[in-house]
Amino acid sequence: MNSEKLKIAVLGGTGNIGEGMVLRLALQNLMPEGVKNEIIIGSRSLETADEAAKKALSELENCGFDTSRMTINGMGNLEASQAAEVIILTIRFDHVLPLLEEIKEALENKIVISPVVPMVKEGSFMAYRPPAEGSAALAIQKNVPESTRVVAAFHNIPAGKLRDVVKCKAVHDALVCSDDAKAKELVMELTRHMGCLKPLDGGPLKQASTMESLTPLLINLAKLNGLKDLGINFS
Amino acid sequence: MNSEKLKIAVLGGTGNIGEGMVLRLALQNLMPEGVKNEIIIGSRSLETADEAAKKALSELENCGFDTSRMTINGMGNLEASQAAEVIILTIRFDHVLPLLEEIKEALENKIVISPVVPMVKEGSFMAYRPPAEGSAALAIQKNVPESTRVVAAFHNIPAGKLRDVVKCKAVHDALVCSDDAKAKELVMELTRHMGCLKPLDGGPLKQASTMESLTPLLINLAKLNGLKDLGINFS
Repeated sequence: MNSEKLKIAVLGGTGNIGEGMVLRLALQNLMPEGVKNEIIIGSRSLETADEAAKKALSELENCGFDTSRMTINGMGNLEASQAAEVIILTIRFDHVLPLLEEIKEALENKIVISPVVPMVKEGSFMAYRPPAEGSAALAIQKNVPESTRVVAAFHNIPAGKLRDVVKCKAVHDALVCSDDAKAKELVMELTRHMGCLKPLDGGPLKQASTMESLTPLLINLAKLNGLKDLGINFS
Repeated sequence: MNSEKLKIAVLGGTGNIGEGMVLRLALQNLMPEGVKNEIIIGSRSLETADEAAKKALSELENCGFDTSRMTINGMGNLEASQAAEVIILTIRFDHVLPLLEEIKEALENKIVISPVVPMVKEGSFMAYRPPAEGSAALAIQKNVPESTRVVAAFHNIPAGKLRDVVKCKAVHDALVCSDDAKAKELVMELTRHMGCLKPLDGGPLKQASTMESLTPLLINLAKLNGLKDLGINFS
C-alpha cells in the first residue's frame, strides 16, 4: 500500500449506506482535490467483504470511471481495522458495541467515524432512542481506547442519492462533530469531496445527539409528506 | 369584528418572533389566497400591546401596504385570548405555564399554536431542555382544557427573515405537528401564506420534540460556521 494514501476501513461496507460511502470515497482518487485513499471494506465474513469490493470496482468501471487509480479490498472487520487509519462504522447501533469489543485494540490512535443512529419503529413513526450516554457517538467514545478520536458524521445522507454517483446532483449539508479539531477537519475534508455533501461544523461530540435525531425526522417527514430520500439544508 | 375573518391572538406579539408573525399574518389580508384575519396583539400590559399594534400598522403603511384592509389591535393577554379563535404563544417557555393558568378558561374549543422552544445556554452552545412531558407542546397540552387543540408550529423560523417582509425572498420548510387534523390543516394554510415558509406535515403532537430541538441546532450551527439567521429545508 502507498503510505501517502489515507487507509479507510468501511465496516459494514456491504450495507445500504456503506456501499454508497465506498463508491463516493473511491471516486475522490479521480478528483484533483479529493482525499486520496485506499478503501478496505470490512465485514464479519471475508468472502462477503471481498465480493462487495469486487462489486464496487466493477460498478465504478461500468460507469466509465478509471478504476486503475482506485484501491478497494475486502477483509474481516478486525483485519480491516488493523490496516486502516480511519474506520467508518456503517452498521446498526445494536451491533456497534459487540463489534467495538472485537476490534478495540486495533483502534489505538485512530479516527473512528460514527454515522450510527439508534432508532426504533414506534407505531408508524421512527423514534430516536439514544443510549444512556446521550448519543451513539458518546457510547462509542466510551467503548474505544482513550487515544481514539471519535467523529460523528454522515448521519443524514439520503442513501439513494449517495449511491447514485452518476446522476445525483443534489448537495446536502452534512454536520460533523468531534472533540478533536484535526480529526474533525480531516472528516470535513472527506465530506467536502463526496460530491453530494457540504460539510458544516457541528461542534463538539456532545452535540451529536441532535444530528442523530435528524435521521428519524427525515424518514418520518418523507413518509408524512409523500417525499423520498430526503436530505437537509441550512441557509 | 367581521365574523368571516379568523381572529388570531399573538400573545407576546411585542417580542422578536411575535412582531414578525403579526406583520406576516396581517399581510395575508392583501393576498388573494391568504387567510383573512383580524389580529390581536396580547401583552401583560394593555399599553404595550396597543403600542405594538400601532407600530405594526405604521410599519406596514410605511412599506406601502394598504392597511385599511388589515385589523391589528392590542389587548391584555386574557382579553386577547377571549376575543380570538386561534392563540399563538410567542413567549419564552418559562413564562408559558403561568400564562396558561391565567388564560385557561378562555381557551375552551380554541386552537393554541406553540412555537415555544425550551432551551438553555450551556457553555458556548444552546441546548434543548424539554420538560418532563417530552416537549413544550406536550406540556402545553397538559395545561389547557381538553377541548383545546394544540398545534406545534413556527419553531424554526429565522426571526430576521420573518421580520423583513419586503426584502426577504428565502423560503424555508416549516414543520407543523398536531393530533387534530383540522387544526393542523388550518395552521398549515396560515403557514403557506406567510411568504417565507412552506408547511410540511410533521405528524402528531408527540413529534414536536424533534422540531423544538432544531432551534438550538440552528443557533449553534450559525455560530460555529459564521452564518446568520439560519432556516432549514428538506429535499
